[in-house]
Amino acid sequence: MTMTGTGGELGAALAAAAPTVTVVTDPAVLNAHRADHASTCPSGTPAALVRPRTTDEVAAVLRFASEHRIPVVPQGARTGLSGGANAVDGAILLSTEKMTTIAGIDADNQTATVQPGVINADFSRVVAAHGLFYPPDPASWEMSTLGGNAATNAGGLCCLKYGVTADFVRGLEVVLADGRVLRTGRSTAKGVAGYDLTRLFAGSEGTLGVITELTLALRPAAETPRTAIAFFTGMAPACDVVTEVMRAAVRPSLLELIDPVSLAAVSRHRDLGFPPGTTTVLITQSDDPAHAEAVLNGFAAAAGREGGEVLIADGPEEGRMFLATRRSVGLALEREGANLSEDVCVPRTRLRELVAGVGEISARTGVTIACTGHAGDGNMHPTMVFDAGDPAKAAAAGQAFDQVMALGLALGGTITGEHGVGVLKRDWLARELGPVGLEVHGGIKATLDPLGILNPGKVLARC
Amino acid sequence: MTMTGTGGELGAALAAAAPTVTVVTDPAVLNAHRADHASTCPSGTPAALVRPRTTDEVAAVLRFASEHRIPVVPQGARTGLSGGANAVDGAILLSTEKMTTIAGIDADNQTATVQPGVINADFSRVVAAHGLFYPPDPASWEMSTLGGNAATNAGGLCCLKYGVTADFVRGLEVVLADGRVLRTGRSTAKGVAGYDLTRLFAGSEGTLGVITELTLALRPAAETPRTAIAFFTGMAPACDVVTEVMRAAVRPSLLELIDPVSLAAVSRHRDLGFPPGTTTVLITQSDDPAHAEAVLNGFAAAAGREGGEVLIADGPEEGRMFLATRRSVGLALEREGANLSEDVCVPRTRLRELVAGVGEISARTGVTIACTGHAGDGNMHPTMVFDAGDPAKAAAAGQAFDQVMALGLALGGTITGEHGVGVLKRDWLARELGPVGLEVHGGIKATLDPLGILNPGKVLARC
Repeated sequence: MTMTGTGGELGAALAAAAPTVTVVTDPAVLNAHRADHASTCPSGTPAALVRPRTTDEVAAVLRFASEHRIPVVPQGARTGLSGGANAVDGAILLSTEKMTTIAGIDADNQTATVQPGVINADFSRVVAAHGLFYPPDPASWEMSTLGGNAATNAGGLCCLKYGVTADFVRGLEVVLADGRVLRTGRSTAKGVAGYDLTRLFAGSEGTLGVITELTLALRPAAETPRTAIAFFTGMAPACDVVTEVMRAAVRPSLLELIDPVSLAAVSRHRDLGFPPGTTTVLITQSDDPAHAEAVLNGFAAAAGREGGEVLIADGPEEGRMFLATRRSVGLALEREGANLSEDVCVPRTRLRELVAGVGEISARTGVTIACTGHAGDGNMHPTMVFDAGDPAKAAAAGQAFDQVMALGLALGGTITGEHGVGVLKRDWLARELGPVGLEVHGGIKATLDPLGILNPGKVLARC
Repeated sequence: MTMTGTGGELGAALAAAAPTVTVVTDPAVLNAHRADHASTCPSGTPAALVRPRTTDEVAAVLRFASEHRIPVVPQGARTGLSGGANAVDGAILLSTEKMTTIAGIDADNQTATVQPGVINADFSRVVAAHGLFYPPDPASWEMSTLGGNAATNAGGLCCLKYGVTADFVRGLEVVLADGRVLRTGRSTAKGVAGYDLTRLFAGSEGTLGVITELTLALRPAAETPRTAIAFFTGMAPACDVVTEVMRAAVRPSLLELIDPVSLAAVSRHRDLGFPPGTTTVLITQSDDPAHAEAVLNGFAAAAGREGGEVLIADGPEEGRMFLATRRSVGLALEREGANLSEDVCVPRTRLRELVAGVGEISARTGVTIACTGHAGDGNMHPTMVFDAGDPAKAAAAGQAFDQVMALGLALGGTITGEHGVGVLKRDWLARELGPVGLEVHGGIKATLDPLGILNPGKVLARC
């Protein structure tokens, strides 16, 4: 049976099928929930928003949706940058924002069990009170949810040393499209019992199931990091420093590059006091006291050889100030115009070619492109800054966007290091995967979601 | 079309379909290749053994097998412990032993591209010459292949600090059941383009595809480790030391427990010179010079509090001697009788209950059970030692085996931390996964191998 009609009718039927679930059909609320932070991605008109609190409630919603073949779009905090949480027409938006229980923290085994709607920063503070540390730190961490982080396999600044979100997900509870409840993984440090379904769901962007519980790995608390900054008059030497620093036996815990466009944007809002002629900045940290001296000295030596001027922070406060420059890049660029943010990741040794190529694309298309990012991982965020009110400029930004992805692939990289595919990069995903990869993706999607109700059109084009 | 008949007929047809592939139908050779190291697992009679050298040759074999619906059993060095590489009747054994090319080592990006038949130890020596380090070190590393390690997601002693094999696999080339060639993953440090198929194939034990190339992550060379050993008169205090040591901010790179049964077996072949009354031993290492002192002192303090006597090795040679005791456990137990090796992994704090429970199972069944393992990860190898010529004793060993798995699950653990499922634990996998988990496994298997020709009956029972 296929249900059509107004949101009100669907809302009433849904409320009857899942009587304990909060169902919202107020158009203003729905409109406020229709999109994530990918401002340029299309979003449809949802029919209802549900805010379940329990796994059973999620299952009831999905059984209803399957029965009536209604699309379901899972949403966390909608901080994604690829339109992965954007509404499709007639969809039920399934928000996890009321699933905020931290069911348990096991300090001795360094694990935690949480519902998906827990905010990353809230969780990090709670585990810190137990002397523990949850490393994944996407830029959105003060707002984004642990479930959303897992569904997109979010990265961040800490990845360089600690790995991405999926590296900290040991097990999941997932409600499948038809309402069945699946448990994946384990709570132990190791395990090879069956296929790695945990990793299959992590990063699948809500297209295969809805995560309703996560078993996360924690670490002992890290020490306050020590920080150094290097100032360059060009990007190429900074890229070479990245390769050299990452060759060392002990890696920094953070290695970020700020490019000239980003630096200029930040400078328009505050006096950075950087040496005259500085166009490019590298920032590094080490959170391991036994190695920090060597890591920072190695960084300083490499930067010096490439003509950089280096400052080592004289304490945590100055370190935070250095890093604040990096953290303010996003906001500064948003003040310059519409942003279309890229996320290519290339082998580290190709960074130099990536930034040079982005410069050429900017010159060719006339689009301003910033190119800041997680240089230590080769994961940069070229960001087209443009006037969205000018169709020609928006079109040029779109062309530049495509050219940057083509460049990333040509350099042996991937179209997305950490932001995910969503709707933004769906067509490019097909190029990266190739026909066999796409067929296998389609087969897995069809196996787990045969009616195609789960986040349709995300990651993969609709069949 | 279904082909039956003698191996000779099949061999001739196969040689015609894949003319460049070495095809062997000599019964003696086939017999020598029919099983892995899981001596108690059943194996069938294979029809042919092929030794392809290239991806195209593997694809030709699989196209032929699909066309004729002939089962294919992928084999590396057959060092597995779960019967995952055991022949099934009428199967083509697809050995990767001639796929031994190391296609490239990229020292700056710390990656390598290899064929699956490269021996782990050979590879480790080659990358060491580049100042690099490939951590995965299953006990079989001198014999086992990188492809087999990936197909089983092998663990080892280094896991404690560095992670398991899959943590070092960035991308794969896989030949699917019908001969299509799939590329998964990437060579970059990060990437979220599509579903994590790399992790799906890693640990799938040849049931979803045949790995024909691996892109592996490497690390800068580690330093020579420092080693300490602690002697206890019982297992419980040693287990408590494990929990305490793993709570520390900096973890050891190795933390192994040798139980009384194993220690007695080793002692029968050499004079260990351990303090009188020693029944249980913990061995730890740190390969990080900046932290080794603190790690070893922390270990010594924790062991001392629990009544252990501690020796810190006075150099690498003595450290190797300490570890040699651990490494000789497997051989010493094999000299005592038939071995049925377990691989349960439990949360670290449940180790004490695990070893106590194994002791009770031993008393109840009358079966000698050793219980040595990777204590830092909670991954122990309870090993039933019995007289295989006595059916009653073999049956009791089988009962003890089942009871240990039930115990592992009851303690919140998994039936296999690193050895895999194969045929040995297929029925127990169903118990660990539960009905929904099993359905999803079956769906994925059917999607990727609709004819069920790939390693049939391994991991999952035949449909």
